[in-house]
Amino acid sequence: MTLDKEQLLTIGVDLGGTSLRVAAYTPEDGILDSIALPTRLEAGPHAVVGDMCSVIRMLFDRFFRGRNLAGIGVGSPGPLELPAGRLHHPPNLPGWDGFHLLAEMEKLLDAPIAIESDANAAALAEYALGLGRLLDVDSLCMLTLGTGVGNGIILDGKLWHGAAGMGGEAGHMTIFPEGSLCGCGNTGCLEACASATALMNAAERLIASGKAPGLAALKGDRLSLTALDLAEAAQQGDKAALAIYAETGRAIGIGLAGLINIFNLPLYVIGGGVANSWDLLSPAMFEELERRSYVYSLTAPGRAAAGGMPGGGTRVMPAKLGAEAGLLGACILPLHLSSHKLAGGVSREDNMLGVPGDD
Amino acid sequence: MTLDKEQLLTIGVDLGGTSLRVAAYTPEDGILDSIALPTRLEAGPHAVVGDMCSVIRMLFDRFFRGRNLAGIGVGSPGPLELPAGRLHHPPNLPGWDGFHLLAEMEKLLDAPIAIESDANAAALAEYALGLGRLLDVDSLCMLTLGTGVGNGIILDGKLWHGAAGMGGEAGHMTIFPEGSLCGCGNTGCLEACASATALMNAAERLIASGKAPGLAALKGDRLSLTALDLAEAAQQGDKAALAIYAETGRAIGIGLAGLINIFNLPLYVIGGGVANSWDLLSPAMFEELERRSYVYSLTAPGRAAAGGMPGGGTRVMPAKLGAEAGLLGACILPLHLSSHKLAGGVSREDNMLGVPGDD
Repeated sequence: MTLDKEQLLTIGVDLGGTSLRVAAYTPEDGILDSIALPTRLEAGPHAVVGDMCSVIRMLFDRFFRGRNLAGIGVGSPGPLELPAGRLHHPPNLPGWDGFHLLAEMEKLLDAPIAIESDANAAALAEYALGLGRLLDVDSLCMLTLGTGVGNGIILDGKLWHGAAGMGGEAGHMTIFPEGSLCGCGNTGCLEACASATALMNAAERLIASGKAPGLAALKGDRLSLTALDLAEAAQQGDKAALAIYAETGRAIGIGLAGLINIFNLPLYVIGGGVANSWDLLSPAMFEELERRSYVYSLTAPGRAAAGGMPGGGTRVMPAKLGAEAGLLGACILPLHLSSHKLAGGVSREDNMLGVPGDD
Repeated sequence: MTLDKEQLLTIGVDLGGTSLRVAAYTPEDGILDSIALPTRLEAGPHAVVGDMCSVIRMLFDRFFRGRNLAGIGVGSPGPLELPAGRLHHPPNLPGWDGFHLLAEMEKLLDAPIAIESDANAAALAEYALGLGRLLDVDSLCMLTLGTGVGNGIILDGKLWHGAAGMGGEAGHMTIFPEGSLCGCGNTGCLEACASATALMNAAERLIASGKAPGLAALKGDRLSLTALDLAEAAQQGDKAALAIYAETGRAIGIGLAGLINIFNLPLYVIGGGVANSWDLLSPAMFEELERRSYVYSLTAPGRAAAGGMPGGGTRVMPAKLGAEAGLLGACILPLHLSSHKLAGGVSREDNMLGVPGDD
């Protein structure tokens, strides 16, 4: 096998609250290999960054020959202040408040580092490699319905960061002002209505109230239901499970209707595990869109004002890339220089991933 | 007085449902003169466009000597499809659904025409001549609380249009999903909670229910209260009036909290007549912002992540330009070419505002 001297290599990191994944990537071959390890939260942020950088170096050593390192991309739980790369009370990384993730990584790695929120990384992947590429649109808004509800917004080909890097937090728009408490301190956020956590909480509330005998039987003596249990019950026609998905679809629809009225983008992507139940969620969601967004009702595919829109009108679709979106997005971050400022950015003549000052 | 041969002239039009205003403008001297006339809705859109173009020509004839016409700017009620310049069911212009405003004006005027929604025009004025200039920010979001709730969003110095020109309709984000019916067909829109119309409706409901004796006495035998009545009653401590303003401030706060989480901009401007009651509205609004937007609570002036932000953090302020914002914005539209595509755009060698093909 002859290696192309000009082939670009990136290393991507998907940092999560329970595990972290690191991959080596080239635009030609995609992910060459990836390594997953537990996020040692109990050992503190410095230890986790140490683990992360060891694995980055390991993958670099394995794959750098014959390639040029374009940079390291990191998708981190938010809220993430940019360009500082500092975390502020990240709910999924307890004990990391105020932690300068970027600066700490730069102490250990002598390479350009591009850092984004994990939801931004997923949106970038969907834009460059998924639905965005398929429909040839230059703007999209993605909601990632997982443990929380992440959001990434790409406008005219660039990730929208806002003034302190904290834009793209549509997961915390208020849907029901008097709704359930959210991890952010607010009540009724989209995240408190449409995350996997919110779905399971709704199921447990229904079981406790005696209104979901089917789900109660399914749960049996176990401590809790799983998301898969709930989806299967709904597929088999369990009324309580169906109602939970309809209510979730409704909440997503109310939030999305607002986003469509605000942005009028050609594409809205729903990702994350909850989006796998698209058929259960989407009818109620589209009902809310028609009712609550006149921009949607004028610009949906085939409508009056959809003609001039890229992609054929306002499309709302399930994500294409699935669970790999966050890691893929981290891998391609260093290749999308226009969308963010790369930290470091020194051109590496020696193409070695050392510790700063060790050469 | 010696006229500068290079001085630019624009003509701005603020088209409203009851009246239309036309002004001649230069960057050096501002508005030179303006003419207001009733919008003859009963005569139909072609007649109104005829009136408008006559007045444009009148002002042009008076002021063109020694100046170069940069273009004509129009702020129109929405929803406005761009770049087509076509209206879709505009609630304030009954009978204009599907009307090609831009094309009809181009038939009557041989000059470059820039057209925007009235709320976008007001936001542009506030950006270029008002608070945006004062605080030196490159992005802002403006809500105009008038008969309806208009919205204009400027990102990195450009009006955000979205794919069909229908972006910037945050007046129709849902605040209370089961709230009052909005003109757009949805229930609980910001417009249905925080417009002048919504305030007066709330007052009438309270009077009818017998819960607002002070307002009932103030109204007496009249058909309805005025906005000024309501504001004065609140200033004098009337509890029902105060509660209406607090509830309005709360609705604005819920919507703004979402916008701050979505955009993380340095400046949010509240304009329109309702914003004149800032002292009555803003305490409840800021309370909601602190509670419902963690991006606000991290980036408000003086907070942890506000340091690097232009303007000193997330500012939420009443508009600076007042009732002239829409007309001023229309006047400067042709000067902000980067923010939109000018229709026509033919360089006018003869500097005469004729009918196309009449020379």
